[in-house]
Amino acid sequence: MSLLLIAKNRDFDSLKKALLEKDPNLDVEIWPRVENRERVNFAVCWNHPEKVLGNYTNLRAVSSLGAGVNHLLDDESIPEDISICRLVTDSLQEQMAEYVLNAIINYRLHIGEYFENKRKGVWEQKNTLPKKYAPVGIMGLGEMGLNVATLLAKQGYIVLGWSRSKKDIDGITSFAGKGDLDDFLSETKILVNLLPLTDETEGFLDLDIFKKLKKPGYLINVGRGDHLVEEDLIYAFDMGYLEGACLDVFEEEPLPKNHSFWNRKQIMITPHIAAITPAKEAAEVIVENYKRAMSGMDLLYEVDREKGY
Amino acid sequence: MSLLLIAKNRDFDSLKKALLEKDPNLDVEIWPRVENRERVNFAVCWNHPEKVLGNYTNLRAVSSLGAGVNHLLDDESIPEDISICRLVTDSLQEQMAEYVLNAIINYRLHIGEYFENKRKGVWEQKNTLPKKYAPVGIMGLGEMGLNVATLLAKQGYIVLGWSRSKKDIDGITSFAGKGDLDDFLSETKILVNLLPLTDETEGFLDLDIFKKLKKPGYLINVGRGDHLVEEDLIYAFDMGYLEGACLDVFEEEPLPKNHSFWNRKQIMITPHIAAITPAKEAAEVIVENYKRAMSGMDLLYEVDREKGY
Ligand SMILES: NC(=O)c1ccc[n+]([C@@H]2O[C@H](COP(=O)([O-])OP(=O)(O)OC[C@H]3O[C@@H](n4cnc5c(N)ncnc54)[C@H](OP(=O)(O)O)[C@@H]3O)[C@@H](O)[C@H]2O)c1
Ligand SMILES: NC(=O)c1ccc[n+]([C@@H]2O[C@H](COP(=O)([O-])OP(=O)(O)OC[C@H]3O[C@@H](n4cnc5c(N)ncnc54)[C@H](OP(=O)(O)O)[C@@H]3O)[C@@H](O)[C@H]2O)c1
Repeated sequence: MSLLLIAKNRDFDSLKKALLEKDPNLDVEIWPRVENRERVNFAVCWNHPEKVLGNYTNLRAVSSLGAGVNHLLDDESIPEDISICRLVTDSLQEQMAEYVLNAIINYRLHIGEYFENKRKGVWEQKNTLPKKYAPVGIMGLGEMGLNVATLLAKQGYIVLGWSRSKKDIDGITSFAGKGDLDDFLSETKILVNLLPLTDETEGFLDLDIFKKLKKPGYLINVGRGDHLVEEDLIYAFDMGYLEGACLDVFEEEPLPKNHSFWNRKQIMITPHIAAITPAKEAAEVIVENYKRAMSGMDLLYEVDREKGY
Repeated sequence: MSLLLIAKNRDFDSLKKALLEKDPNLDVEIWPRVENRERVNFAVCWNHPEKVLGNYTNLRAVSSLGAGVNHLLDDESIPEDISICRLVTDSLQEQMAEYVLNAIINYRLHIGEYFENKRKGVWEQKNTLPKKYAPVGIMGLGEMGLNVATLLAKQGYIVLGWSRSKKDIDGITSFAGKGDLDDFLSETKILVNLLPLTDETEGFLDLDIFKKLKKPGYLINVGRGDHLVEEDLIYAFDMGYLEGACLDVFEEEPLPKNHSFWNRKQIMITPHIAAITPAKEAAEVIVENYKRAMSGMDLLYEVDREKGY
């Protein structure tokens, strides 16, 4: 029995070390130099080459190396009876909440403009946007979204949440499904995307959404690049629906050198760093799920392949 | 009886409006066009011209328009029997805590470097500095410092505080006086200055302080510009004691166009906006203290002129 780590261009040294610290008896292989394909029962993937998993006939379960699983669900070569799971850890949730809070404060305090002004040697006080005029709408109240919503509510923000099913959470106004969408958007100024990437949500962040926000709105995309119709973001700026955006994820990553986003002063860009699983915590969930898969138990953070998240 | 507002280059329209909304019977004068000097019993000042208060012989109390009072205490022409008070409001404390938290996250997540990289079209992931390697030391645990310390502790930071007198606060390790200073600094990586500006604290932030921090340290100065020996900050960068600084206050404000800080990539500059009292809240404290002064009661947030803060 062995556990296989698969990713394009990724250094697995620290993860392998953490896995062996957690369980010294593990047999860990690293793709593409796999010694024994037959023995692989469990794979951990991040941006794996499509169909590569077909080579492992004794595979029982596959884990994403992050919270997102769209890269696994998109790969139709993974047999239906194989369980797919993902990583969720306290630290991932905490980092995400902190990232979003930070992006919101940077927006409300005009920190991006102060960075620009610094380059020009300009001293100009701007009015901080009070919290009461900055209601935050969070799309997706799952493992990430819920934690973000809770932190923001504690910090005194007006928080709205939108998900498939209605939620009952202190301090958060819950909206559910397509029927509630317009109401949710009309009360939102800062829109945070934490939806999973599925057939239903791909390309969801478009002009139609942006124009329904409190004008001018602000977008924080920490879900996936494919949620956003990139040219609609530019239209939304030009038409005054949005006044800025903080983006951590992109259709193509790394964001291509010649992409127009780099030159848009309204956009803050971070290179997909909002929430990164520390090797030690990743190892804990992976080893636990590996053991569960070997003994036929239910996995932690298993994905509903029907729902797509 | 009248209340006088004094400041160089400041528009008092919204404050005057808020004062009259709070108490329509108030007689509010705005310097320098004062109709009746004799009637002035209470003055509210921000960067007032030194000695100007000597013109008001029936003055009973003077309030700062902010939390800082150094501009009033430095003016030796204010008679000793006149009470000096200042503004402290929930919103001021909340803004300050948010500003400092944001500056810390920007540092830990390398947001400044991502801003720079955006200009250059560079995609480069950097390691977020985990909280456990980012102990925050707060100098000054007064109205501002204490609130900052509490928020950071709640957010999971290691928080140390340094003040004149020892404090007993959950989640915060308290250090007091010169005797504890070296211990405090040696356990601090991110140094936040929230001391009041007094004879003792002027020029306190110098090379000697910086070199005792966990190397490389980070400085957040939200106290007063005169706390910092500006050239020592540059030495501290050059010698590797500090790797960056976020500065909201400066020896000279606005920071002069030709000041070397503008060109230092390690420095984040904001134009004294960390905590600004909203007119409505300012009016509440001012009207309350005006009434107290008129009826001979103790003032809120009165300054100990002996201690100097
Ligand atoms: N940038 C980063 O570093 C980073 C790090 C981690 C995660 N992420 C991304 O963050 C996103 C959220 O992850 P997660 O772990 O929180 O996901 P999750 O636990 O699966 O939660 C998904 C949430 O979205 C809602 N949802 C799904 N489809 C919907 C639809 N069609 N309409 C309305 N609501 C819908 C779900 O509603 P119900 O509650 O009703 O089911 C649920 O609340 C993912 O896109 C992930 O890739 C990014
Ligand atoms: N940038 C902005 O927008 C902004 C806004 C508001 C305030 N501020 C500045 O923030 C600073 C703090 O204001 P505050 O209202 O919190 O002041 P405060 O309530 O007077 O508190 C002062 C604190 O500093 C400590 N302290 C004073 N002298 C000391 C010394 N020689 N050694 C050690 N500790 C000493 C005091 O110790 P004890 O507790 O033992 O007395 C107290 O904890 C001021 O400089 C103010 O001007 C800036």
